[in-house]
Amino acid sequence: MQLFPSLTLEEGWALIAAGVDESKRMGVAQNLAVVDAFGHLLCFVRMDGANRLAAEIAVNKAVTAAATGVATEIIAPRTIPGEPGYMIQTQCAGRFTTIGGGAPVLCDGATLGALGVSGGSVAQDVEIAAAVVLAFQPENCPARE
Amino acid sequence: MQLFPSLTLEEGWALIAAGVDESKRMGVAQNLAVVDAFGHLLCFVRMDGANRLAAEIAVNKAVTAAATGVATEIIAPRTIPGEPGYMIQTQCAGRFTTIGGGAPVLCDGATLGALGVSGGSVAQDVEIAAAVVLAFQPENCPARE
Amino acid sequence: MQLFPSLTLEEGWALIAAGVDESKRMGVAQNLAVVDAFGHLLCFVRMDGANRLAAEIAVNKAVTAAATGVATEIIAPRTIPGEPGYMIQTQCAGRFTTIGGGAPVLCDGATLGALGVSGGSVAQDVEIAAAVVLAFQPENCPARE
Amino acid sequence: MQLFPSLTLEEGWALIAAGVDESKRMGVAQNLAVVDAFGHLLCFVRMDGANRLAAEIAVNKAVTAAATGVATEIIAPRTIPGEPGYMIQTQCAGRFTTIGGGAPVLCDGATLGALGVSGGSVAQDVEIAAAVVLAFQPENCPARE
Repeated sequence: MQLFPSLTLEEGWALIAAGVDESKRMGVAQNLAVVDAFGHLLCFVRMDGANRLAAEIAVNKAVTAAATGVATEIIAPRTIPGEPGYMIQTQCAGRFTTIGGGAPVLCDGATLGALGVSGGSVAQDVEIAAAVVLAFQPENCPARE
Repeated sequence: MQLFPSLTLEEGWALIAAGVDESKRMGVAQNLAVVDAFGHLLCFVRMDGANRLAAEIAVNKAVTAAATGVATEIIAPRTIPGEPGYMIQTQCAGRFTTIGGGAPVLCDGATLGALGVSGGSVAQDVEIAAAVVLAFQPENCPARE
Repeated sequence: MQLFPSLTLEEGWALIAAGVDESKRMGVAQNLAVVDAFGHLLCFVRMDGANRLAAEIAVNKAVTAAATGVATEIIAPRTIPGEPGYMIQTQCAGRFTTIGGGAPVLCDGATLGALGVSGGSVAQDVEIAAAVVLAFQPENCPARE
Repeated sequence: MQLFPSLTLEEGWALIAAGVDESKRMGVAQNLAVVDAFGHLLCFVRMDGANRLAAEIAVNKAVTAAATGVATEIIAPRTIPGEPGYMIQTQCAGRFTTIGGGAPVLCDGATLGALGVSGGSVAQDVEIAAAVVLAFQPENCPARE
């Protein structure tokens, strides 16, 4: 056997709480999802007033960021017509999305999980996910400089 | 973050190889699948002459055993009409199955992954999966008594 | 590489034509599907007046008979609560069915494909599928005694 | 009946083994899948460290190459907006993909199966799949000149 690192629920919950704070500060009601390193849902919150049907998209953004190790919007340019990753969005049972708002939680090169935010404008979703993950320090990881 | 144990490819491959040997000894062509602790496919073999359409069932048996930590056939009685788990087989996008032939690989209480066997009679599938997993000693695990 | 036997379109069409004749003789409008040895649709006919929504079921009956090598109704008793094959109907993306009316075309132990009939009573579906397959002699196969 | 050629497990395994060697030489951990001529999974390996969620994509690349008889990336330009094959990636239950890394195994005009590679950059996936298939000589096929 080998050992694989992944987020604890306490860490997942801290990501969601920070995302809720950030959303309130911006005045937008959001869906916030955290998946673990293996693509499975760890915790989820839909703020009062948030778009119900964006809940699934928040999860998909987190799944994609966890699978790729990069923010979902980074992938989009590589998937436009003519590019090598064209139409990768149909894969993973339709869960692969390049809409902005999914951000991975990294630790020394490994992906521990990801946060997905959906319900505001794409710009808002991206801003919230990026800010939360940037400010997050996982336990037992070397501090970023 | 926390650390989760799971099978290595070398271990997955040892499970498949042992299953192929056992299948040959019994004179049955099998599909053999190993999934990791997180339900993702690690390795797979369909022996020449094995039922093509049972390939997916072998994977599903492994997924179910990894998810539950018990042999697939153990779950069946809890899912018959009137029991609490009735019809759980419709869950997990149809991957949950209680047909015998899925067996978990355990280590000190943790599930490291699972082997799924499909293509023979259910009795043969069960016998092979059980024998292989019983004889398997994962690396870095205390030996069973 | 190795070689695998399967029905030709001419043979598939002969199965459908015989099924249509039998259905007319019985005064029932049917859906008739033939799949090849690998579970892929070879030909299909929905007689005027036949139940539209049974079309998919005819295909599934053929897929199941091709996958198992036995008539679909033979499998049903092995899948009731308490039996080893309980709930196998959820497998194969929901295409596995034990409703009568799917019959395999065999040749010297190999399954060449299957006929699925759906649209009448189950008894009618079974009778038509069984009669057609019993009377069918694939090319290059030893005659049954 | 007619006879259809397809890969043996021994041949499938040789493709996977060559792909693993090539991946190690390039220093990338890959998912490698081989499907038979009929689109059914024959064997699969996920190298330690390879992206778990690309496992399904490796299988889909192999399925697409087996279905079309060409490398997956060859198809992409015919599927961009305005072209006849636009959005064909949504077909075949989401298994059709034009992302590079799926390569067919051909024999005298027939498709015997295919190799799918996923987990590196698309350029790496393409290079490995192409190199392995180019160097592969199926049994009982005339040697390519």
